[in-house]
Order: sequence, then C-alpha cells, then structure tokens
Amino acid sequence: MIVYPKSLQKLIDSFKLLPGVGEKTAERYALAILEKRKEDVLLFAKSLEDVQTKLRECERCHNLSEDNLCAICQDEHRDQRVICVVASVKELASIEKSGSYHGQYHVLGGLISSKKGILPEDLHLSSLYRRLEDVDEVILALNATVDGEMTALYLDQKIKDRVEVTRLAFGLPIGGHLDYADDLTLHKAFEGRSKME
Amino acid sequence: MIVYPKSLQKLIDSFKLLPGVGEKTAERYALAILEKRKEDVLLFAKSLEDVQTKLRECERCHNLSEDNLCAICQDEHRDQRVICVVASVKELASIEKSGSYHGQYHVLGGLISSKKGILPEDLHLSSLYRRLEDVDEVILALNATVDGEMTALYLDQKIKDRVEVTRLAFGLPIGGHLDYADDLTLHKAFEGRSKME
Repeated sequence: MIVYPKSLQKLIDSFKLLPGVGEKTAERYALAILEKRKEDVLLFAKSLEDVQTKLRECERCHNLSEDNLCAICQDEHRDQRVICVVASVKELASIEKSGSYHGQYHVLGGLISSKKGILPEDLHLSSLYRRLEDVDEVILALNATVDGEMTALYLDQKIKDRVEVTRLAFGLPIGGHLDYADDLTLHKAFEGRSKME
Repeated sequence: MIVYPKSLQKLIDSFKLLPGVGEKTAERYALAILEKRKEDVLLFAKSLEDVQTKLRECERCHNLSEDNLCAICQDEHRDQRVICVVASVKELASIEKSGSYHGQYHVLGGLISSKKGILPEDLHLSSLYRRLEDVDEVILALNATVDGEMTALYLDQKIKDRVEVTRLAFGLPIGGHLDYADDLTLHKAFEGRSKME
C-alpha cells in the first residue's frame, strides 16, 4: 500500500529509530519537517552527519568530544583534584547544567548490572584507576538504583585505599512533597538529617 | 556554558524544531542517535535532504508527490468518479491506511478558521471546483470540530448544485464505551441510528 511518497516514508522510518517514537509520532515529525524552512532542515541533516563523523570519546574522561580531550578536560580553570564519576554523558550534562560542580569527570559508559549482564570490565574503570594518583577526591554520582548502588559499592571497595571516595546526598527533592516521597527516600532523609542553622 | 560538543548541540537544537519536543526530549533523541549504526544515521540525514528536494504537491489533488501527479492520481484502478475532500495529507494517510476508500482525494491544505484567520481563498478550492465536472460524488471527510464543520458547510453551499455532496457518519467509535461518549456524539449517534439487520 502506497500511502506516502518514498522519500517521506524513508524519513518516517528514520524517525522511528528514536527512543519512544512509534508510527504515529514518526509521521507527525516527518510531516512537521515539511513545514520547516529549507535551511533548517538541511542544517538538521548536516548535524546528523556531523555527529557521526566528528564526535569521539575524550581520551581522558570518555566524555563526548570533537578533539582528543573534551572541553571540560581542556579547561584549566576547573578543579583538577576532584573527579566526579558518572554512568553516562547524560548525567554529566545534567550536573554541568546545574552549575553545582566545577571539577573533572569520568564517564563509566554504563553501570554494573546483573540484569543486563554488564560486568566491571565492560566499564571504563582501568582508565579511572590510572587517574587516581593526581586527585584528592572521587565523587560517585550514580543513580540511586540497584545497578547504581552495586557500581558504587564495587568502586568504593576498589579505590577507597587510594583516594577519598564520597557520594551525592540522598533526601527529599527540593519542592517535593513529603507525602509523595517513597519510604526509602524518607528513611535516607531521616538518616542524613542535619542541625538547623 | 559548554555542556555538549558543538555538533551534538546543533543536533539537539535541530530536534527541538519538532512538534512537542523540548530540551530534555531533544537531548534524549540526540544521544540515542550516537548509539545507532552509522549507515542508519546517514540514511536519516539523506532522507531529510530528500524530502526537501524531491517532494512537491500533486498538480491535481495537492497530495504530496515526487512526480507531477501523486501515486493515487496515477492509479487507474481507483474510482475516478468520487473525490474525498480532506484538510491535510495526514487525514488522507489515515483514510488510506484504513483501506475504507478507493477513490480520488482533494487536499484543501487547511480548514476555514475564524480563530486562525484562514479564509476560503487560502485553501485549494478553485482546483477542486475545476474537478467537479468529472465526478459524481464529493465526500467531505473533515474533522468534527468547529473549523471542520464551518468548512463543510461552506463547501456544501458552494458545490451542492453541481455534484452530490456527502459527509462521513458521526457516532460511537467502535470499541468505545457509551458512558465515555460526550453528549454531542451521543446525540449524533441517536440521530443517525439505523435498523438492526
């Protein structure tokens, strides 16, 4: 059945590659593209090509980069004595946007997971171990999930003799309502309670 | 603040062109692209370029096409004596996929709308009027909204002396629960009730 011209159908199929995008949404996106300015669409096409050809991993921290070292590793104004360990570039980006951290990063490329069969040797760990000599503190900024917890415990065991290891605080999210917090969050919030100042 | 390499940031910005896609989703899409096979991403880029360069409007019915006439207008096996009028290519595609119609189409390119300031002269109407001599019936397949209704009434007035004008039936959607139907739908369903066979 021919519903759309070939080129449009191919675009719809391409949009279906994206996470959570099914037939209907892909159609909606493809039809929306037809309404956009020609230069915007060509720029879209070019940026798809560019990320394929230009992007690689930072040699030091495994962040995404167009050079051997990523912009963060190249920035001499950042604290060189702290490494924040994250699972992926996504978490790195969230932390950067929050502006709450100004040190180095190390991107593991995943989390240890018995469910997904991801082992410590699948992660960028040896390159992390090599960096420890130059730092005072390693902050574990991993998801508060089973896999995140497992990875944090594993890493702590491995490196705690060589460097100070810390983790992000658990507790109520700012603006969060206490009656919506789950039991474990409340438990951690009580455990981590601090004196009023 | 540099969070992502330039090429990736450009891709994120491009994804934000899509309807309903904000910062977070655009990031998610762009990062997902990095995980895809190179040939798929390059095909994605090419299909974006192709829809810009190859697609145009069918000369007769204003459907999307890569030729002067769209695949439907070119198909001699379809009923040539009926035209189904739709607002846009999206509705045409839905009808085609349902397999419930095998005649010609005419894409208006919108609906008359006092809210959006769309007038009859903004739609592909004169090309529709020119086609009436060759057909027996015009089926109005327009949204059951204020704008769709307004457009249907306008069109009916304009062409009912020259051709038989029909509209799609209103009623309960198949699989729909009666207690979830709105009053107007129920009203129309009662009005359009038919004898049990």
